[in-house]
Amino acid sequence: MSISASTSATVGEIADWLDAQGMDGAIDVAPDEAATRITGAASLACATAEQVSYYDGDRRSADLATSTRAGLVLTNEAGRQHLPRGVCCLVVDQPRLAFARVLERLYALPARPAGVHASAVVDESATIDPSARIDAQVSIGAGARIGPKVVIGPGCVVGSNVVIGEATRLLARVTVLDDSLIGARCVIQPGVVIGSDGFGLAQDNGVWRRVPQVGRVVIGNDVDIGANTTIDRGALDDTVIADGVKLDNLIQIAHNVRIGEHSAVAGCAGLAGSSEVGRHCTLGGGVGLAGHLTLADNVHITGMSMVTRSIHRPGVYSAGTPLDTNERWHRNAARFKQLDRLVRRVKQLEKRLGDKPTPEEDS
Amino acid sequence: MSISASTSATVGEIADWLDAQGMDGAIDVAPDEAATRITGAASLACATAEQVSYYDGDRRSADLATSTRAGLVLTNEAGRQHLPRGVCCLVVDQPRLAFARVLERLYALPARPAGVHASAVVDESATIDPSARIDAQVSIGAGARIGPKVVIGPGCVVGSNVVIGEATRLLARVTVLDDSLIGARCVIQPGVVIGSDGFGLAQDNGVWRRVPQVGRVVIGNDVDIGANTTIDRGALDDTVIADGVKLDNLIQIAHNVRIGEHSAVAGCAGLAGSSEVGRHCTLGGGVGLAGHLTLADNVHITGMSMVTRSIHRPGVYSAGTPLDTNERWHRNAARFKQLDRLVRRVKQLEKRLGDKPTPEEDS
Amino acid sequence: MSISASTSATVGEIADWLDAQGMDGAIDVAPDEAATRITGAASLACATAEQVSYYDGDRRSADLATSTRAGLVLTNEAGRQHLPRGVCCLVVDQPRLAFARVLERLYALPARPAGVHASAVVDESATIDPSARIDAQVSIGAGARIGPKVVIGPGCVVGSNVVIGEATRLLARVTVLDDSLIGARCVIQPGVVIGSDGFGLAQDNGVWRRVPQVGRVVIGNDVDIGANTTIDRGALDDTVIADGVKLDNLIQIAHNVRIGEHSAVAGCAGLAGSSEVGRHCTLGGGVGLAGHLTLADNVHITGMSMVTRSIHRPGVYSAGTPLDTNERWHRNAARFKQLDRLVRRVKQLEKRLGDKPTPEEDS
Repeated sequence: MSISASTSATVGEIADWLDAQGMDGAIDVAPDEAATRITGAASLACATAEQVSYYDGDRRSADLATSTRAGLVLTNEAGRQHLPRGVCCLVVDQPRLAFARVLERLYALPARPAGVHASAVVDESATIDPSARIDAQVSIGAGARIGPKVVIGPGCVVGSNVVIGEATRLLARVTVLDDSLIGARCVIQPGVVIGSDGFGLAQDNGVWRRVPQVGRVVIGNDVDIGANTTIDRGALDDTVIADGVKLDNLIQIAHNVRIGEHSAVAGCAGLAGSSEVGRHCTLGGGVGLAGHLTLADNVHITGMSMVTRSIHRPGVYSAGTPLDTNERWHRNAARFKQLDRLVRRVKQLEKRLGDKPTPEEDS
Repeated sequence: MSISASTSATVGEIADWLDAQGMDGAIDVAPDEAATRITGAASLACATAEQVSYYDGDRRSADLATSTRAGLVLTNEAGRQHLPRGVCCLVVDQPRLAFARVLERLYALPARPAGVHASAVVDESATIDPSARIDAQVSIGAGARIGPKVVIGPGCVVGSNVVIGEATRLLARVTVLDDSLIGARCVIQPGVVIGSDGFGLAQDNGVWRRVPQVGRVVIGNDVDIGANTTIDRGALDDTVIADGVKLDNLIQIAHNVRIGEHSAVAGCAGLAGSSEVGRHCTLGGGVGLAGHLTLADNVHITGMSMVTRSIHRPGVYSAGTPLDTNERWHRNAARFKQLDRLVRRVKQLEKRLGDKPTPEEDS
Repeated sequence: MSISASTSATVGEIADWLDAQGMDGAIDVAPDEAATRITGAASLACATAEQVSYYDGDRRSADLATSTRAGLVLTNEAGRQHLPRGVCCLVVDQPRLAFARVLERLYALPARPAGVHASAVVDESATIDPSARIDAQVSIGAGARIGPKVVIGPGCVVGSNVVIGEATRLLARVTVLDDSLIGARCVIQPGVVIGSDGFGLAQDNGVWRRVPQVGRVVIGNDVDIGANTTIDRGALDDTVIADGVKLDNLIQIAHNVRIGEHSAVAGCAGLAGSSEVGRHCTLGGGVGLAGHLTLADNVHITGMSMVTRSIHRPGVYSAGTPLDTNERWHRNAARFKQLDRLVRRVKQLEKRLGDKPTPEEDS
């Protein structure tokens, strides 16, 4: 069940919002429809006559579209065909994007008063913009600079000399350690740790000695960071998360990782030290990058793949083995350990039959 | 070393506790044994004459059983044979379950005073049952409803309109964001985040736009959630964790995941958006579920398997490759990239030898 | 960009520091060089004439060495050859280790005043050494003992009867639950949870019952623990992290795991219940250990490998499949499910050609 919207709007007003953002496509709303009041949003399956939904024309959801009771559906030309007669729709090029815009309006965050909660502990040398909100039990260190309209939710810890840009929100219980820089309009979910010491160790006759980590974390604008994700400070230079990067939950970003503009990383991924991800890349859930490698722009790695070498060409890359019944998997997995031998056995057979040798494949 | 029990009991009293719960099996205790006082619990290897242990008859632990010095062992008929003469035992059908019951009594949580700690910040519109305990530095938002005997440990953040059912315990530093519902008798370990925004993004000419997440998290009764696990709110509808589900540490539950009654998920697993897990399922450690798939009831996935398709039949499923020395692994792994070609080479050989073609296997 | 050092030193002073620690190797500094003032550290690529860097002679970084403008480089005989004439260097056996020592001096943590912050909530039965620092919004339970020079950063929760040894630092928002023991000189990053309940469950006719976890967590000296890592208390006996162990971020350590001295575990690894890791082992990122297995000393597991059996010999071990383009991977991965059959087909071919049967490989 969706939560309550903070505002309502008529279909006509929603059409105007989209129009104002150049997302009109083929919007045309009959006058009697324009007055329908929309009080919230829901999925095609659950939406009522007072709720807006969206449909991108995907055939797998056609059944849901055909039977929806939504009061308004944002859709495209392809999707329109599947909607029942009598369902009011606005036809746009990108229904999901239009839907996001409408949600932003209907579910606009309630304005909460600016100011510093009495229970917060703020170092006297920190600078807090008067339009910022510092919530209960927050701790802010010396020299920190908190920008306009920033929201620091309850239980957050902000270290010394941290800079947080305009309208960025730390939801709750976020830790940002000393000297980290965070841009504007970022959203940082609870439990995130930014600026922790990286895993920098030097061997000393069998004993690990820690190497002090003296780089920073630098995060651009419009970056989102999911719950309990960790981003280590650089060892010497900086760890850099560029503008528009989106990170899901429980991701590990090691020291000196660099992620390029508008790349997205799904949950449980791990990026080892000094790995570099290009722009417009996507890493699936649970993907692991070894250290000191580079991914070109527009590289896409499917879930749970291990990446041990640099990738220089755009494209989609994968690793892993398919799921099977445990019994069959056991038999096949055991053979994996004989693969090299098997290839040599086949080569031997080919030789016996007088085939010309098969050239080795490379990749 | 086990911690101190909060109470002690004689062997006779412990027999009576189990009896009262219908777990008596073949309990018979000699009168002189009944008076032995048990002051705590320990493993078979470490237990002293004042401690209770358990033995389920597993042959791999037979050596430990044979040499135990425990003052009392809960065991079954199979296990009884391995215990030394003179060790007092209670024979029950399910020794581990009986042991759990005894531990609950010996290590009953000390009753701590109800009430709201002076340092907690509680919105005036929140409802706190008088029997609940709100610990130091807790923050509770507007309209939250905290049920009877609930314990909110130190440093927790509870958002607006959150509802927490009777006797549920948030141990410490748990974050529950706005509108989440949590049932009764749940235990939620430190660092857990419930109700974070899911990874909902819409493409806008190469730039990711966030899609506001307006669903809720709904958690049933008797659900346990391990340390630093994250559960995202639904995008539109709810993320649902049903009654009796047990989640280990560092698990990622994405938006609109649904987990059925009495399923258990081990640590480091990741469930992508809209995946559905049936009832009485188990997911091993590090398992990854792709989005928008369904697991039937009684499906069991072994550790670190990647699941990319729905599973419609109960059973045990696996993926992955076996560990090997790095040197051998390198040789075999390289051949993985030639597998399709290898199969075709074998087919060619078979053809040359006049075999009838081998039909392709499907799965 | 590296953060500001807390102190500066001349090249001569740095040579003396290393000398005093027996790390002199072949230090010899011309008198005019000895006076150069070093105010911080940076990478070879970024260091200025006032900064120190290091170079271990690795050929892959030779280009960076050749063009460095660092005011001082710590290097070895091999590395010295690559540095430009005129760059001041100190030649030592272990440049990285020497660099760590120099960083410790240049970036020595500023002495912060001892004492308990006014916003901290400390049980009156807890013992806080007068030289310890307890920061804002910390909560400390009954009977806890906080040693000399310990730093408990903002937002930490320390449970009852916890003992923390000399000079250990909890950076921020760390949770240490009841009865945990932590040694001296440990560094624990934000979000870490120590002493959470393990995943101890007993089946009761299809319903999971939790088994109370009554063991402890015992952590040795000089242990480092990365951000958001979780360490469960033992079920009955203890979970043990020995002296000098280094744990990276987002690692799951289940109940009754034991990790031997000076082993290191990289991010996102998961160690299931009762697994035992020897001394001087390394586990790569994302490695998973099944429960109840043992790794000998000096075992090294490469990233993302699944370990399901004990390993009795030192060495490097691996699992997994190599990355490929998604298209090729699909074709090859499908064949993985036919591997056992493929081996039998090859055997058949060999038999037809009159080869003597190939003995099965074991491992």
